[in-house]
Amino acid sequence: MKAELLTIGNELLIGHTVNTNAAYLGRALASVGVLVRRAVTVGDERDEIVAALEEAWRRADVLVTTGGLGPTHDDITKKAVAEFCGVELEFHPEIMQKVREAFARRNMEMPAPNEDQAWLPKGAILIDNPIGTAVGFHFRRDGKHCFVLPGVPSEMRHMTDAYVVPTLREFSGGLVFRRRVLRTTGIAESALYELLGEPREVESRGVKVAFLPQFAGVDIALSVGPLDAATAEKLLDEAEAWFRQRVGKWIYGRDDQKLEEVVAELFFKTGKTVATAESCTGGLLANRLTDVSGSSNYFDRGVVTYSNASKMQILGVREETLARHGAVSEQTAREMAEGVRRISGTDFGVSTTGIAGPTGGTPEKPVGLVYIGFAGPDGSYVEKHQFRKDRLENKFRATQAALAVLWRELGKIVREER
Amino acid sequence: MKAELLTIGNELLIGHTVNTNAAYLGRALASVGVLVRRAVTVGDERDEIVAALEEAWRRADVLVTTGGLGPTHDDITKKAVAEFCGVELEFHPEIMQKVREAFARRNMEMPAPNEDQAWLPKGAILIDNPIGTAVGFHFRRDGKHCFVLPGVPSEMRHMTDAYVVPTLREFSGGLVFRRRVLRTTGIAESALYELLGEPREVESRGVKVAFLPQFAGVDIALSVGPLDAATAEKLLDEAEAWFRQRVGKWIYGRDDQKLEEVVAELFFKTGKTVATAESCTGGLLANRLTDVSGSSNYFDRGVVTYSNASKMQILGVREETLARHGAVSEQTAREMAEGVRRISGTDFGVSTTGIAGPTGGTPEKPVGLVYIGFAGPDGSYVEKHQFRKDRLENKFRATQAALAVLWRELGKIVREER
Repeated sequence: MKAELLTIGNELLIGHTVNTNAAYLGRALASVGVLVRRAVTVGDERDEIVAALEEAWRRADVLVTTGGLGPTHDDITKKAVAEFCGVELEFHPEIMQKVREAFARRNMEMPAPNEDQAWLPKGAILIDNPIGTAVGFHFRRDGKHCFVLPGVPSEMRHMTDAYVVPTLREFSGGLVFRRRVLRTTGIAESALYELLGEPREVESRGVKVAFLPQFAGVDIALSVGPLDAATAEKLLDEAEAWFRQRVGKWIYGRDDQKLEEVVAELFFKTGKTVATAESCTGGLLANRLTDVSGSSNYFDRGVVTYSNASKMQILGVREETLARHGAVSEQTAREMAEGVRRISGTDFGVSTTGIAGPTGGTPEKPVGLVYIGFAGPDGSYVEKHQFRKDRLENKFRATQAALAVLWRELGKIVREER
Repeated sequence: MKAELLTIGNELLIGHTVNTNAAYLGRALASVGVLVRRAVTVGDERDEIVAALEEAWRRADVLVTTGGLGPTHDDITKKAVAEFCGVELEFHPEIMQKVREAFARRNMEMPAPNEDQAWLPKGAILIDNPIGTAVGFHFRRDGKHCFVLPGVPSEMRHMTDAYVVPTLREFSGGLVFRRRVLRTTGIAESALYELLGEPREVESRGVKVAFLPQFAGVDIALSVGPLDAATAEKLLDEAEAWFRQRVGKWIYGRDDQKLEEVVAELFFKTGKTVATAESCTGGLLANRLTDVSGSSNYFDRGVVTYSNASKMQILGVREETLARHGAVSEQTAREMAEGVRRISGTDFGVSTTGIAGPTGGTPEKPVGLVYIGFAGPDGSYVEKHQFRKDRLENKFRATQAALAVLWRELGKIVREER
C-alpha cells in the first residue's frame, strides 16, 4: 500500500514549527509495511487543503492528515474534508460532552468556539483520544483509508499508535518495510566508501543502502521491503553482518541508539566509574553522560574548568604546563584527565580542551583544534582532533570523540573479561 | 511571489530525519516577502522528483529544492533537474578542483564518486559554498527561479542566507511578511491567557497572534503581511508594546533568542562573573552558558557534583546537611551555590539539585522536584520547582529556571546602574 501525508498549518510553512509529525508518521506507517511516498504541507486554507486531498487521493491508498482540528478560527481541516468527501457535517453529542467535561475539570466554562469540535463529516469513525480534547477521525472511500489527526504531537502520536497502526496492520497483508541503521563514529563518509565501495553485493539481494553523515558520525541505513517480516529480518541480519565484517570496528550501535547509551551499557556491564574534566565542551560531555537514567552509578562528578585558575585549583594542572604549552595542549589535556581521576578516585578520567570557536584561533592553534585526554589504571594518553568552524558543532563532535574513547576502553575490558 | 519547497530524501519520508530544512527555508523566504505555499517531500527516485518539479513549477514563481546532491549513489537530484529542464549536464573543472583541494587539506585522495559533483545542468549558476564541498545551483526559466540546494543543513543554510535570500529580495517587489516572537519564561500559557484575554485589540489591527508553549516557556508569535516593510515593522512594534505593557516582566527576548544569550549580554554589560554547581542538570547549565561565544569572560567554572562525596569535597557541602535533609533539599542547594561561589571567587554562584527521573522519586520528593540555589554578594536564596516526568525535559526546564534567576538578578543590577 502506498501512503501520502498531508500536514496542515501555516506554522509549518512559515517555519516556526518543525514538522516532527511527518517523521513520526513515516516511521509508524513503515512499521506495518505502508511506505510514505510523498509528504505535502499546505497552509490553513480550505481550497489548498481540498486540492491537496484530491491530488493525494488519486495517487495513494492511504492518506493521513495532521493539523487544523482545534477550536480556533484557523482550523478548517474538517470542513475541507467534508467538502472533499461531498458529505455534510454531523453533530456528535458524545464529543461535546467530553470537551465540556475537560473544561469543567479545569474549572473553566467551555468557550463557544469549542462547539465546532463536535461536528464530524457524516460516516466518519471517531478516533478515541484519552489524553486531550482534539478530535481525530477515520473514513473509507473507494477502498482507500483516510485518517484525519490533530496537529498536537502528543495527541497525534497517541492516535497513530493506538488506532492508525493497528488498523493498517489488518490491511497491509502481512508485508512490512524494515529499516536498520548502523551507527559509526570515527570514520569519514569518504573513508567508509573507499573501504566498502558501492555495496552492490548487499544491494543485489534487495537491501537498499544509504550513507548518512551526521555530527555524531556516519549512519549506514539499510532498508528492505515490502516483504514478510521473517525474510526482512533475515536480509537485514545478513546485510548487517556484511558491514560488520568490513567496518565493524567503527560501528557502535543501531537505529536511534546514542553513543552515551552504548557507553552506559558498558559501564553497567563492567562496574567501572568515570569523572570528566572539560574545557572547550563546557559541560556537554557531563550532560550527555547524565542524560542516561542510572548514570549516577558510574558518573561520579564532572568539572568544567574554563579559567586557568580553576584548572590549577581543582585539577592540579601545573602552572608551568599552562605557561609553557598553553591551556589548549596535549600536556594540559593529560594533566586534566589525570587530575580529575585522582581527585575523584574513579577508574577513568576523561578531559577535553580546545578552541570551540568561532573566535580565539591562531595559525598554530586554529578553531576546531581539540585534545581529548584519557587517564586509566594503565596510564594516560591524548588524542588530537581537528574539527570545523561552528562552535556548537565542535562542542558536540568533541564530546562524541571523548565518548568514543570511553567506548573503546570499556569494550577492551568487556572482551578481556570474556 | 509564491514559493514551493521540494525536499528530497527517503530519510525524510521514512522518518529517520526530521525536516528542519523546510522550516529554515520557510522563515528565510518569508523574510523577503516570499511566502511558501506548499512544501513537498519525495524520495530519492528520479521519476518522483521530476514529477514533483513539474507540478510545483506550474503553481509557483520560486522553487527551492534540498537534498540529493552528494557524491553517493542515492543522490540523483541533479540528473532529475537536468531532465526536467531538458538540458545536458556540463563539467565544471573549478568545482572538481575545489573538491580535490578539500580532500587534499585532510590528506586524503578524492574518491572517484566525487567526480560526479563537478557536473551541473547546462546554464545553471553555481552557488558558492565556502563551508563544504556540496554543490548548489540556481537557474531561471520562464521568468521563474529554481534554487537547488544540498540537504546538509549547515551548507543549505549558508547558501540560503548568502545567495537565495539576497537574490529573491531583488525580485520580491517590496512587500514582506514579518513575524516577531516574544519569548516568555516563568509563566504558564493559561496564566498568560488570564492576564491577556483574547488579544482582539491587537488582532483588529491586522496582527495575527499565536501562543506557543515550549519547554523554554510560552512564545507569543506576532505576524503581519503582506505589507511594505515600514508599515509591517510599525504594526509589530505597536503590538509588542501592547504585550510588554501587560506581561513584560516575563518577556526575556525576541525571535530565536535563547535565554543563555540574553543572560550573556547582561553579563557583558555588567562585568559580573558566575560559577555553577549542578546535580540533577548534569552539566547542561554549564553547557548552555558556554554555548555563547565569549562566555569565558563571565563563566569561570562549573562543577557537576553527582556523588555526595564530590558535593562535600569540592563544594564544602556539610555531611550533616546531606544526612539530615538529603542531597535534594533547599539546604543542599543553598550550600552548593554558596560553595561554588566561595571556591571560584565569582560574583554569583548558581546550583541545581533535584530528581530528574524517570526513577528515583518518593512521595515526599517526587520526580520533577528541583531546587535552584542562588548565591550573590547580598546573600543567597533557593527556588523550589515541580516539573514533570521526562528526564531530558526536566533537565532542560531546570536549567531554564536557573538561567531565569541569573536574568532577573543581572536585570536588577542593570536597572540600578542606570
